[in-house]
Amino acid sequence: MTTIYLAGPEVFLPDAMPIMAEKRRLARQFGFEPTGPGSDENQTPVKRTAAEIYARNDDAMRRAEICLANITPFRGVSADPGTVYEIGFMIALGKAVFAYSNHPDDYGLRVRSIWYAGLEIDETSGRPRGPDGIAIENHGMADNLMIDGGIEATGGKVFRAATLPADPARDLTVYFKALQTIAGIPASFTPPSSPR
Amino acid sequence: MTTIYLAGPEVFLPDAMPIMAEKRRLARQFGFEPTGPGSDENQTPVKRTAAEIYARNDDAMRRAEICLANITPFRGVSADPGTVYEIGFMIALGKAVFAYSNHPDDYGLRVRSIWYAGLEIDETSGRPRGPDGIAIENHGMADNLMIDGGIEATGGKVFRAATLPADPARDLTVYFKALQTIAGIPASFTPPSSPR
Repeated sequence: MTTIYLAGPEVFLPDAMPIMAEKRRLARQFGFEPTGPGSDENQTPVKRTAAEIYARNDDAMRRAEICLANITPFRGVSADPGTVYEIGFMIALGKAVFAYSNHPDDYGLRVRSIWYAGLEIDETSGRPRGPDGIAIENHGMADNLMIDGGIEATGGKVFRAATLPADPARDLTVYFKALQTIAGIPASFTPPSSPR
Repeated sequence: MTTIYLAGPEVFLPDAMPIMAEKRRLARQFGFEPTGPGSDENQTPVKRTAAEIYARNDDAMRRAEICLANITPFRGVSADPGTVYEIGFMIALGKAVFAYSNHPDDYGLRVRSIWYAGLEIDETSGRPRGPDGIAIENHGMADNLMIDGGIEATGGKVFRAATLPADPARDLTVYFKALQTIAGIPASFTPPSSPR
C-alpha cells in the first residue's frame, strides 16, 4: 500500500484528534496508508521532546512515498513553517509531493490583505513593494515560489480552493479533491521507492 | 573551496544588491565560495520566470556543501517560507545546515507578541493556546521545531541574537559570528560531498 505523509498544522488545533482521524480515514478510503505528525495521537497521548518529535517525523517522511501538505495560511500570510520544511525535505528525497490550500488568493494578494492590510503598495518600480520597500512576489502562486515551484518542477500539483470556506483550518473539500486526483493519477507517475 | 548556500529573504529588500554583496564578501573572507538566491544579481538583472528561479536555486543547493540560512522573522512570526523550504531540502540532501536569527525571542514568545499581540493566552490546559484555541509551540526554539530540530539533529546550529538589533532585516553581527564558527569547526565535521 502506498504510504502518504499528511503534512499540516492540524496538530495545533484544539480538536486536532478528530480532524486528523477524519483526514486519515479519507486517505485510507482512497487506498493510501496515512502517516505524518501526530499520527498516533488517537492512542494515549505521550509527551515527547522536540528532538523525539523531529526524529519521528523525519523517519515517517523517509518511509512515505507521497506527501500531501496542507499549506492553508497559518497565523499569517504563509503556510505553517513546519509543513514547508517537510515539503522541501520530501522533494529533496525524490518523493511525489502535493499540496492544498483552503485560501483562494495567491501569495501576492495575501501579502497585501493580511500583512499590509489597507496600506499603499508601490507599483511604480516594475515590482510591487510594501511601504517598507520589501518586494511582493507576484508569480500568481499559492505561496512563496520555492514551494509551488518545487512541487510543480517534480510533477506534483498545488490544489487551491475556489472560494474561502467558512472554516479554512478544518475544511476538507480541497483535501478530498486532492486525494481523489492523486489516487487517480496514471501508474507512470509512481513515485520512486523510499530509500529505506 | 567549500561552497556555502546563503539562504534568506534579502532578495526582497529594496537594497538587496549591496546587502547580498556584503554577505558574499564576508563568506569569501572566511574561505567559502558563496552561492544562493540572487547570487548573480550584481550583473545586469535578468527577468526570470518562477520555474527558472526555482531550477537555479535547486541546482545551487545540490552543488553546495553547506547552508547558512537567515531565519530572522519575515513579515510575521516565522522565517521566510522560501528559506524554510531550502533548509528542509538541504538537510534531506545530507548537507551541513546552519541558521541564524536576528530576533532574540524564541518562537513561542513571538507568537504571543507578533500574532496574538495583547490578547490573552490560555495556559490552563498544559499547552499554551491562543484565544482561537490553537496551540503555541513552547520548546524554546528559534522557530517551528522542524527547523531547529532538523538542524540540531544533523549536527548544525541555530545562532540567535542576544538582543534585537536596530535593523533586523540587515544586521550582519550574528551572520558574521555564524560564519566564524562554521569556518572554525573541526575537519571531522566536513559535510558529505554533493551528490552531483
